[in-house]
Amino acid sequence: MSGGGDGGDRRPTSCLALSGGVGGAKLALGLARHLAPGELAIAANVGDDFEHLGLTICPDIDTLVYTLSGLANPETGWGRAGDTATFMHALAGLGGETWFHLGDGDLAMHVARSHRLRSGESLSRITADICERLGIEARILPASDDALRTIVETEDGPLALQHYFVREKCAPKVKGFRYDGSRTAQVKKEILGALSEPSLQAVIICPSNPYISIDPMLAMPALRQALKDCAAPVVAVSPIVGGAALKGPTAKMMHELGAAVSADSVARHYRDLIDGFVLDPADAALEKAVRGLGMEVLITPSVMTSLGDKIRLARETFAFAVALSRSN
Amino acid sequence: MSGGGDGGDRRPTSCLALSGGVGGAKLALGLARHLAPGELAIAANVGDDFEHLGLTICPDIDTLVYTLSGLANPETGWGRAGDTATFMHALAGLGGETWFHLGDGDLAMHVARSHRLRSGESLSRITADICERLGIEARILPASDDALRTIVETEDGPLALQHYFVREKCAPKVKGFRYDGSRTAQVKKEILGALSEPSLQAVIICPSNPYISIDPMLAMPALRQALKDCAAPVVAVSPIVGGAALKGPTAKMMHELGAAVSADSVARHYRDLIDGFVLDPADAALEKAVRGLGMEVLITPSVMTSLGDKIRLARETFAFAVALSRSN
Repeated sequence: MSGGGDGGDRRPTSCLALSGGVGGAKLALGLARHLAPGELAIAANVGDDFEHLGLTICPDIDTLVYTLSGLANPETGWGRAGDTATFMHALAGLGGETWFHLGDGDLAMHVARSHRLRSGESLSRITADICERLGIEARILPASDDALRTIVETEDGPLALQHYFVREKCAPKVKGFRYDGSRTAQVKKEILGALSEPSLQAVIICPSNPYISIDPMLAMPALRQALKDCAAPVVAVSPIVGGAALKGPTAKMMHELGAAVSADSVARHYRDLIDGFVLDPADAALEKAVRGLGMEVLITPSVMTSLGDKIRLARETFAFAVALSRSN
Repeated sequence: MSGGGDGGDRRPTSCLALSGGVGGAKLALGLARHLAPGELAIAANVGDDFEHLGLTICPDIDTLVYTLSGLANPETGWGRAGDTATFMHALAGLGGETWFHLGDGDLAMHVARSHRLRSGESLSRITADICERLGIEARILPASDDALRTIVETEDGPLALQHYFVREKCAPKVKGFRYDGSRTAQVKKEILGALSEPSLQAVIICPSNPYISIDPMLAMPALRQALKDCAAPVVAVSPIVGGAALKGPTAKMMHELGAAVSADSVARHYRDLIDGFVLDPADAALEKAVRGLGMEVLITPSVMTSLGDKIRLARETFAFAVALSRSN
């Protein structure tokens, strides 16, 4: 496969998004459509990557790749549209592990990537090649090429993220999180590079689960520090709207961790990093509480259903961030 | 996965077949149907096993497994019936190698096996588990658990078997063969065990390509010697009928190696090992020449189309062998 992603002749980065999977990828798609080609870089969570059946699976990177290339399954938000399930049926017939669904077309990603990783290529090199191959102009940057793994501390003991999330269907009560490797993993240098580019106008934390999609990245001290030092404003979009999670187990986790299941809890979670926070009108009553945390607030519909919703929220969030000034 | 294949309470072996892929598997299926469950052991060629996309592919074992379990694609003789090709289409979209077709269901075999091999399990243990899982009562025994690889010496240089066979479509002119690892690979001990069982009544070399399906096994000195020492008669069924190969490149290879493309050339190839040879009526004129090699001859239709053909040829070949006596 040929080049891509070395940034030699690319447009300067104007926006860096931090994203997990399905929820975050919606806003990332909006940003990719709103900004000029090449202006968007996306730091992708790798904390839920795992080894399964001898394959390296990178759920959040894949969701971003499929979403931004138009290949995503619109029903689920993950996996490929129109995928078949012959592999899973055959695997069940051979007595293999079937708790994690792998579509036939999706498997091509896992098999090709695992093979290249074993041959010594980096995750970011492979991801850049795939993005180029699929016509994605935004740069999807794995937060690190090194192992960084989210462990969910539960009442049933520690569980790797996908075991908690998929195999155990988020049932065990959560006591906390651990991000194995976060002290030694090197932040992908293009992410640190984007954060120090003079062209950078905004950093946007997508409406992803704070604990399992964003915190694994923030657990790397160099990335947290670079976000603090960055000249561009940092804003976050709430993944909690009207006291419920838009997607996945965020609300259940907040509840089990003793946090109020409310958008302002998310703002509080990020308070030392962000300059602005995006609230849905359903949470307009929280505006004062969020401002009280020392940040600006944008109130705008943040439930994204159509592509139009995604682009509008991206445009407004980006403009909101650009209008802020940083006082670090 | 649970046990299987340890032979603790199985029926004594009455027949050992040596088989490659599609052609050999037809007779192996006939033998499996003709003999009582458990009486048949099959030494399966591993010389065309190879690593592809990080997966270990064992074409001959898989063809035997699919054929004997009723899962085989009746159109091709290899792969699974009703398989889909979503993986290959997606792989092409990612710029992956597509010269070797891997059906979606077939992939389950390769992924599950590769994972188990990497975890330290042996090929024979995995094969035995899969056979048990798929209800195969014959024992499919990989000729060796160690690496044994057929290299085709061609005018374009040496080629791994599948590269010659599939990628190059057998086009390069063949100068000879090399069986890498044959001097050090250990013959699967259950094969040597079957050859010394007092219950053994016949050894049948299936109508497979002598050079790339049978010789890789015979290149292991311990197997060749065990066949010579075996008390039971050894017979071979010609893969050449009426001067043409029933399947694959056998005739082309014979021609390029300077052998007459004729059933008696195959008999001559095996002359120091076999006691009897099965000729199709189309080759009845060769009977005398074959007898002149010092072996008995059975003339019976050996082109297998229906299941009935396979069972009849298996029954006749087995009876032919049993009626012979060995004078070693």
